[in-house]
Amino acid sequence: MNPHILTNDTIVAVATAAGAGAIAVIRLSGPDAVTITQRVFKGKNLEQQPSHTIHFGTIRDEGKIVDEVLVSLFKAPHSYTKENVVEISCHGSDYIVQQIVKLLLKQGARLANAGEFTKRAFLNGQFDLAQAEAVADLIASDSALSHEVAMKQMRGGFSQEIKRLRAELVHFASMIELELDFGEEDVEFADRDQLRNLILNIQRIIRELLKSFELGNVIKNGVPTVIVGKPNAGKSTLLNKLLNEEKAIVSDVPGTTRDFIEDEISLGGITFRFIDTAGLRETTDKVEAIGVERTLQKLSQSSLIIYLFDITTTTPEEVLSELQELNPKKLPVLPVANKIDEASPATLSAFDNLQDIVKISAVAGANMDALKDALVEKVNLGKLNTQQQTIVTNLRHVDSLNKTYTALDDVLNGLALGMSGDLVAADIRRALYSLGEITGEITTDDLLDNIFTKFCIGK
Amino acid sequence: MNPHILTNDTIVAVATAAGAGAIAVIRLSGPDAVTITQRVFKGKNLEQQPSHTIHFGTIRDEGKIVDEVLVSLFKAPHSYTKENVVEISCHGSDYIVQQIVKLLLKQGARLANAGEFTKRAFLNGQFDLAQAEAVADLIASDSALSHEVAMKQMRGGFSQEIKRLRAELVHFASMIELELDFGEEDVEFADRDQLRNLILNIQRIIRELLKSFELGNVIKNGVPTVIVGKPNAGKSTLLNKLLNEEKAIVSDVPGTTRDFIEDEISLGGITFRFIDTAGLRETTDKVEAIGVERTLQKLSQSSLIIYLFDITTTTPEEVLSELQELNPKKLPVLPVANKIDEASPATLSAFDNLQDIVKISAVAGANMDALKDALVEKVNLGKLNTQQQTIVTNLRHVDSLNKTYTALDDVLNGLALGMSGDLVAADIRRALYSLGEITGEITTDDLLDNIFTKFCIGK
Repeated sequence: MNPHILTNDTIVAVATAAGAGAIAVIRLSGPDAVTITQRVFKGKNLEQQPSHTIHFGTIRDEGKIVDEVLVSLFKAPHSYTKENVVEISCHGSDYIVQQIVKLLLKQGARLANAGEFTKRAFLNGQFDLAQAEAVADLIASDSALSHEVAMKQMRGGFSQEIKRLRAELVHFASMIELELDFGEEDVEFADRDQLRNLILNIQRIIRELLKSFELGNVIKNGVPTVIVGKPNAGKSTLLNKLLNEEKAIVSDVPGTTRDFIEDEISLGGITFRFIDTAGLRETTDKVEAIGVERTLQKLSQSSLIIYLFDITTTTPEEVLSELQELNPKKLPVLPVANKIDEASPATLSAFDNLQDIVKISAVAGANMDALKDALVEKVNLGKLNTQQQTIVTNLRHVDSLNKTYTALDDVLNGLALGMSGDLVAADIRRALYSLGEITGEITTDDLLDNIFTKFCIGK
Repeated sequence: MNPHILTNDTIVAVATAAGAGAIAVIRLSGPDAVTITQRVFKGKNLEQQPSHTIHFGTIRDEGKIVDEVLVSLFKAPHSYTKENVVEISCHGSDYIVQQIVKLLLKQGARLANAGEFTKRAFLNGQFDLAQAEAVADLIASDSALSHEVAMKQMRGGFSQEIKRLRAELVHFASMIELELDFGEEDVEFADRDQLRNLILNIQRIIRELLKSFELGNVIKNGVPTVIVGKPNAGKSTLLNKLLNEEKAIVSDVPGTTRDFIEDEISLGGITFRFIDTAGLRETTDKVEAIGVERTLQKLSQSSLIIYLFDITTTTPEEVLSELQELNPKKLPVLPVANKIDEASPATLSAFDNLQDIVKISAVAGANMDALKDALVEKVNLGKLNTQQQTIVTNLRHVDSLNKTYTALDDVLNGLALGMSGDLVAADIRRALYSLGEITGEITTDDLLDNIFTKFCIGK
């Protein structure tokens, strides 16, 4: 790790979401966290209390009571940041939170930057960089799978795999560098065949990891999905049906749904993100007439197409021809026949030979479960075992893995050409550097800033 | 207090505001709070840990890790509700919060109703009803004064005053009822003159309290303020200037401003709530032409009028005549001359004799502080000493105080007419009942429901 100037100041931030709640939590971290809190706190002497204890008292501004609070103490190194940490639990009013934070600033704390608590935890060795990044992913996780993958990464699953690869390479790098010490003596401590096999094996694992990103990206960011179809096919009715059913499920725990994202649904742990639905919902199907150009533009942003048609006014041949026309990029497409409640048995059976077709009535809510199952099936997670497989979800990691792979290619070429040990060693070191960037064994200030400024304040 | 069926179940709710934050807190209260938590928690045995301690561990759903958490223990009666209370601090993701709450529900907790934690605290004698109501006011407080008044009420200041009045009345009531026990013997334990003086004194105090509500209402709900004036006087410019300056002040602590209310500013601890400003800000002054009717409608909802005029195009006589015309109800009105940066010295001095006038330039931001001072002055809080005076902010309390006052009138009448002790005693009991409703010495289930359902879930 690069040398970092360890910070000696004490930071403060609100750790809970803004807005009215029963309580809010203000968090301090740093050598003076307890001392600074004590200066505005009336109750027990906090300095004399053990770690992991909670104390009732009042926060005072020149004698005037700002709030009745509970103060939780975490003494270094037994805290999230491994520094002294204090959490002040106050009444959940923005006004009170603001007053308390201002008092703490006046007493010598400074406002934390985004992600600074987690950055300190990383710098103090609480966890590595990939784990720190997973903290942000965990907070942002909004489906079973994104949660599972982030949790696994935070618990160190991904890091262990990277560190294992790195440890094996380090062994060979040191062997080759030992050869260099012997100069002209032409010894080979590092078995070249073994090294070649190792590198091929590492490259195979990296290829698997890179491949997992396709899935990891879907898990983390959702599947961009578009509903297309002729005017009056029932697109807006279908969308509203899907979103409202989901909303009903999500909202069964009060107080957790205010941030509900309007155009997303979560099915089988996967988030489906509907593209360009504003227009769909503002207009009725009748006035909406999507031109070819606009449809193609929507399709270009999507990874999954729902092609909706009115079964009472469309022939199977029309459907087949439209499916070909609207899908030049061969994206996964799900043909959905709507208005089955208005169709005759003969009409319904005419579509039996169409592959993968789902027949629904959006208005009546008929067969919606079959549609949802088909959507999950289309994303093709059937072969996935998230429990066992390591899944890459972070573009930064993809970048580092690609660089590692290229450096390993160079090592292989060097070996094939019988290049000298120092050149091979240099390529191995490049590979090690890129791998080390993932877990933070190699860091730069720019890299850290880039990662942690994406965090929320207070984490 | 009425007998209440003490609940034997354990309730759970999210205690922090919804949305993404670094952490969220889930709170349980009830006899099984610790036991239920233990069933989903892996770490130390929580049952064996002392009160007011914090424990790191994981929440598990059939072995699968849902989150790494900190569990805070508060053992009965040393908690907010005086029951066993557990607070689970998890990562601030709505998804995680929801999963944990669901797990706790599965283990036997039930979702808390709005205000149920505070209701339990009241029923278990943690504080009285007026104090419980102040908790909600405290969370909603958004200015220095509303915060101060709510804090004072929560700390029991208001309750003490009511209880003192009640105690004195109780003394006389028991004396008179003692007389009744002696039946025909015609004794008087309760000195009638003393009783009359006491009642007059209590009525005087109630009048003061009722009078304080006018102010209490302003403190709690803000001063409905309207800006009126001719098109092109600069109304929207002034409003934006006021709101933006306020926003700049409020937003200096990150993470506390997302709930900023668009049309309010806080000056000298008082909230000014601008009425019907949407139209003001959507239109430019030029296209806006407020008719007399619309202006009068706006005025009918307001308690304070800012009359804005363009000093370069208006004469003092016009201002005087308009001030009379637009203010038939004699509300406090502040005449504000705009565009002083475009006016000649002669024009400026022509307005010197106009009472209370403030001269500004909204565009240049000139003299805005004088305007703000004048607004605070108009609300006439000059005589107020919030530190010493008890201020009523709650309409329910006003209602009970009014009922008490009327009952005391009846007592006085009874005394004047030399009515028998049992009739006088009945009137005193009515007064006692109404006073007791304020602090909750007298409650009904309806009353409690009415109060606590206005709370947020989790409080």
